[in-house]
Amino acid sequence: MKEFELINRYFKGRGITRRDVNLGIGDDCALVTVPENCQLAITTDTLVAGVHFFDDIDPRALGHRALAVNLSDLAAMGAEPTWVSVALTLPNIDVEWLEEFTEGMHEIAEYFNVQIIGGDTTQGPLTITICAKGTVPAGKALRRSGAKVGDWVYVTGPLGDAGLAIEARKQDIKIAPEHLRYVNQRFDYPTPRVAAGQVLRGLASSAIDISDGLVADLGHVLAMSQVSACIDVNKIPTSDAMRATLDKNQQLPFILNYGDDYELLFTVTDSNKNMLEMKLRQYGVDAACIGQIKSGGGEVELMLDGEKLAYDDAGFEHFTKESV
Amino acid sequence: MKEFELINRYFKGRGITRRDVNLGIGDDCALVTVPENCQLAITTDTLVAGVHFFDDIDPRALGHRALAVNLSDLAAMGAEPTWVSVALTLPNIDVEWLEEFTEGMHEIAEYFNVQIIGGDTTQGPLTITICAKGTVPAGKALRRSGAKVGDWVYVTGPLGDAGLAIEARKQDIKIAPEHLRYVNQRFDYPTPRVAAGQVLRGLASSAIDISDGLVADLGHVLAMSQVSACIDVNKIPTSDAMRATLDKNQQLPFILNYGDDYELLFTVTDSNKNMLEMKLRQYGVDAACIGQIKSGGGEVELMLDGEKLAYDDAGFEHFTKESV
Repeated sequence: MKEFELINRYFKGRGITRRDVNLGIGDDCALVTVPENCQLAITTDTLVAGVHFFDDIDPRALGHRALAVNLSDLAAMGAEPTWVSVALTLPNIDVEWLEEFTEGMHEIAEYFNVQIIGGDTTQGPLTITICAKGTVPAGKALRRSGAKVGDWVYVTGPLGDAGLAIEARKQDIKIAPEHLRYVNQRFDYPTPRVAAGQVLRGLASSAIDISDGLVADLGHVLAMSQVSACIDVNKIPTSDAMRATLDKNQQLPFILNYGDDYELLFTVTDSNKNMLEMKLRQYGVDAACIGQIKSGGGEVELMLDGEKLAYDDAGFEHFTKESV
Repeated sequence: MKEFELINRYFKGRGITRRDVNLGIGDDCALVTVPENCQLAITTDTLVAGVHFFDDIDPRALGHRALAVNLSDLAAMGAEPTWVSVALTLPNIDVEWLEEFTEGMHEIAEYFNVQIIGGDTTQGPLTITICAKGTVPAGKALRRSGAKVGDWVYVTGPLGDAGLAIEARKQDIKIAPEHLRYVNQRFDYPTPRVAAGQVLRGLASSAIDISDGLVADLGHVLAMSQVSACIDVNKIPTSDAMRATLDKNQQLPFILNYGDDYELLFTVTDSNKNMLEMKLRQYGVDAACIGQIKSGGGEVELMLDGEKLAYDDAGFEHFTKESV
């Protein structure tokens, strides 16, 4: 199959068509129109075989995941996802694999009303780079730098499930079949918190998505905001699967350091706390308050059963940690 | 070196700062503002080691090239390049290599007033994917689909030099040192025809950049425009280096089929021809008229010394042709 055939068959004319796309796949560039009084939010994430995913990953899950991790970054800014460019490097043309992969990608794109407007297909080691764009009302984007002393710290859902899925594949973890199904689903088909991100606009003081682990990503917010935080580990939400599989101490590395859950972490001022919780309930977002911002130089203080927890704070870091 | 250090050292705070970038490297997304009454042009190109470049390529040239090929696509739309996202997959951290690579990239970015607003750095086989964005007055973008019967066909500069550079490295081609220097420069440091693209807005009826070879890329224009073309091979501009190194027949595959020159190919109506030539001269763009659009179904008719030339019309095609 030639490159043009591949693009025609798996990308062009498939998926949704947005009215703000003036020219889609097939020319030197795509052309789009950004609404007035909006800023454009842009993010790029690369997934490399053997580094970010197992070689035997279900291609449908990979297609979903490659887009989901990018939409998660848009969610963390409070942006509405609109258009994506897909750069796909393939070792060879495997029609069955491509069918599944693109189906997974088109599915989540359609769900979030995102149009694939272009990209590049090349031959080489399996790598997927997506550049996702979204729009946000001017001045309303959520940044990492806005957390202030006294703000409350929240997460939008249970942490550690993706890590549990990875470790269950690597180690001999005793996990019930229904729980394994659940954590595998959480890892393979992460849900970017796009609606939550938009609810947070104008209410949260800072936000980030948890891709590298709670402690590491909270650390980014604290560093950019020049504050510290105290987190009550008992308040970090966990799934039934997590609680049924591991005891409290075993859970710690999963909920504190493992990434890939793609929940949002955000902060809110005390005066906005009630309003925010009401709005989140209204939109069906089940967020948990896990701690508070305090003065300091970027430290994460972890409290467990009323006592300070001494803990290694390394999140997932490319080039330093063993890959999955 | 950790990922954050790498980004801080080689990307953040280096290069130019545009006023329309509201938030650059360092958050979940970048934030930019698109001017009113402008469309956004978006393009993505991937370069894979061993496929798109020799493994021993000068890293400075690679940094230049990775950005240049993307800016060339923006040029072909008549867009003004503004922002780029850089996804860099590296087998390891080689400080010297990175210094040269990013220097080459920052250099061309600065020349074209483009800001690197974000990206991703990952570990894996050397691959560079850039997503470049530019702005173009609404409705003024140059497309592949606008060529009409009777329009004149132009190219913005000599063709085949990059191919000659590649073949000189692979084969025993007798080439004078000064000519070798010239073609190597053309291949290693291609110049995207950004100014020419902007001059063409409102005057050219279609445009494309020649990345896959004249015949192949003209073919894309013809297919999208549902016309054919007759090209006078004698009128295709060539460099002194080309004419001094190869005879007319030997030149054919280079000027007709080899890509990587990144000149623009465009068409213009007979009534706009004089105005366009005047404007191009005014801006110092040395374009050559090489043929004319005629009715038909996408065929490229090549005339050499008044006779039809039978010729294989395959351009550079990923997944089918041997890589460089």
